[in-house]
Amino acid sequence: MAILVVGSVALDSIKTPFGKVEETLGGSATHFSCSASFFSPVEIVAVVGNDFPLEHIEFLKSRGIETSGLQIVEGKTFRWKGLYEYDMNQAQTLDTRLNVFEHFHPDLSENHKANKYIFLANIDPELQLEVLSQCPNPKLTVCDTMNYWIENKREALLKTIRKTNIVLINDSEARELMETFSLLEASKKILSLGPEFVILKKGEHGALMFTKNSHFSAPALPLENVMDPTGAGDSFAGGFLGFLSMTDDISEENIRKAVIYGSIMASFNVEGFGLNRLKSLTEKDISRRYNHFKELTRFE
Amino acid sequence: MAILVVGSVALDSIKTPFGKVEETLGGSATHFSCSASFFSPVEIVAVVGNDFPLEHIEFLKSRGIETSGLQIVEGKTFRWKGLYEYDMNQAQTLDTRLNVFEHFHPDLSENHKANKYIFLANIDPELQLEVLSQCPNPKLTVCDTMNYWIENKREALLKTIRKTNIVLINDSEARELMETFSLLEASKKILSLGPEFVILKKGEHGALMFTKNSHFSAPALPLENVMDPTGAGDSFAGGFLGFLSMTDDISEENIRKAVIYGSIMASFNVEGFGLNRLKSLTEKDISRRYNHFKELTRFE
Repeated sequence: MAILVVGSVALDSIKTPFGKVEETLGGSATHFSCSASFFSPVEIVAVVGNDFPLEHIEFLKSRGIETSGLQIVEGKTFRWKGLYEYDMNQAQTLDTRLNVFEHFHPDLSENHKANKYIFLANIDPELQLEVLSQCPNPKLTVCDTMNYWIENKREALLKTIRKTNIVLINDSEARELMETFSLLEASKKILSLGPEFVILKKGEHGALMFTKNSHFSAPALPLENVMDPTGAGDSFAGGFLGFLSMTDDISEENIRKAVIYGSIMASFNVEGFGLNRLKSLTEKDISRRYNHFKELTRFE
Repeated sequence: MAILVVGSVALDSIKTPFGKVEETLGGSATHFSCSASFFSPVEIVAVVGNDFPLEHIEFLKSRGIETSGLQIVEGKTFRWKGLYEYDMNQAQTLDTRLNVFEHFHPDLSENHKANKYIFLANIDPELQLEVLSQCPNPKLTVCDTMNYWIENKREALLKTIRKTNIVLINDSEARELMETFSLLEASKKILSLGPEFVILKKGEHGALMFTKNSHFSAPALPLENVMDPTGAGDSFAGGFLGFLSMTDDISEENIRKAVIYGSIMASFNVEGFGLNRLKSLTEKDISRRYNHFKELTRFE
């Protein structure tokens, strides 16, 4: 099974206590695709400007990512500039230039529309709805978002949530969206809108999965070298949905495993700037880390 | 096996978004003892003033806690006044009156000194050292602390840590003590001082255990009704050490289980003000919650 992802492709400039990079390949759809590509074919729908380095497209293709939906239009590619200080859980956005993203509309081919697994990465929820309206019969839709859309496009975002099966969201965003400090209450409120699963991403504290009747808690690995958290949430989504698509099994049992694969891919993502760590990653690294997660949570 | 605990017995006045109580029974040694008493005999060494309600001593005795080491002296009992707002992870201390605690010195009987399991609850590290110097041959010593001692008695605290087997500490305190944001690095630095285990308490994010060669991550249960977090860390310690003392097994395997029992007792503690929830707790509640923790972390 392939996954259709609609989101951003960007050039990121990032500074953390451990270094900095200028205009590295980034964006929610990019981190997602790269991460998911270790498990499953991916078809990406996004937009870049005609200043976008071709080598980046070559790289995506080299990971088996289908890029016919990557529109290349007159203008500049979306750029993001961010800073992480001592507390690496929190990015400070220094500059956002939407550029060609400002007039983007996802235009899906017949092949794109036929996909059974859909990831609505962090973009304007009105664009997320445009995608859903074009896909007649998905098996599983998963959406992500961010505080900007909660504050500026709340109604459209709630509409998207009502139409998706799984909501992936940061803990602080879930609190903001549902106006409660309790993560349990926030999750219940999200579930009451329709989704069958809510997955809260808690950065260095791992992830929590909620259904109406059960919870699952996945730890984060205590890591030696956290270089750059940018894209960790999208890499999480990539490992998560990549594994589900690969196994084509959306039982709760398998979704628990998928949360662990999401955590694994996020843990690799943060070990390098931008996509650097994923570039050298092997399947053996992934299966070794799966065992590490088993060991980390094991008790009799 | 009995556990010797040295710490505070206090009268707490607490306000949270869910209610308030005036001069309820509190203190680190009290929460610890009550929690541990579900697993193991406990001997408490502490001090109260002659204003201390006798019913509280009767209550401790009713839980099988040996109180011959509870000094009753002329003066007022230690009082603490605290407030929790929206973010229940963080207490604001409104008032601290040490009162009789100011001149307290732990004076151990021969029976006390013979105990194999010792918990140095959150008190002045110089008093913790006085306890250790009186106990010739413990099997396991565990210490706790707080930011006040890190800032004001750092050298004495480091001495205590060098002489204990297990350090129980909040994540933010570990960061402050070891002057690093990385919990992994902070833990390594603590382990390099001598302890074989460091256990980081992360409130609603659970707990992490570190040894030189392994990590263990225990979740916190997502709870419906968090009323009052006061004493959660001490209840954690009580479940943790109570279970170890009961089983008299300090292998890593058993310490992992003990971390879960600590998490269980902390999860009950926060469901009521002061010690209220522990007062109605049954062994059946505990074993049911153990299964809940298994279910919460289960993946194939």
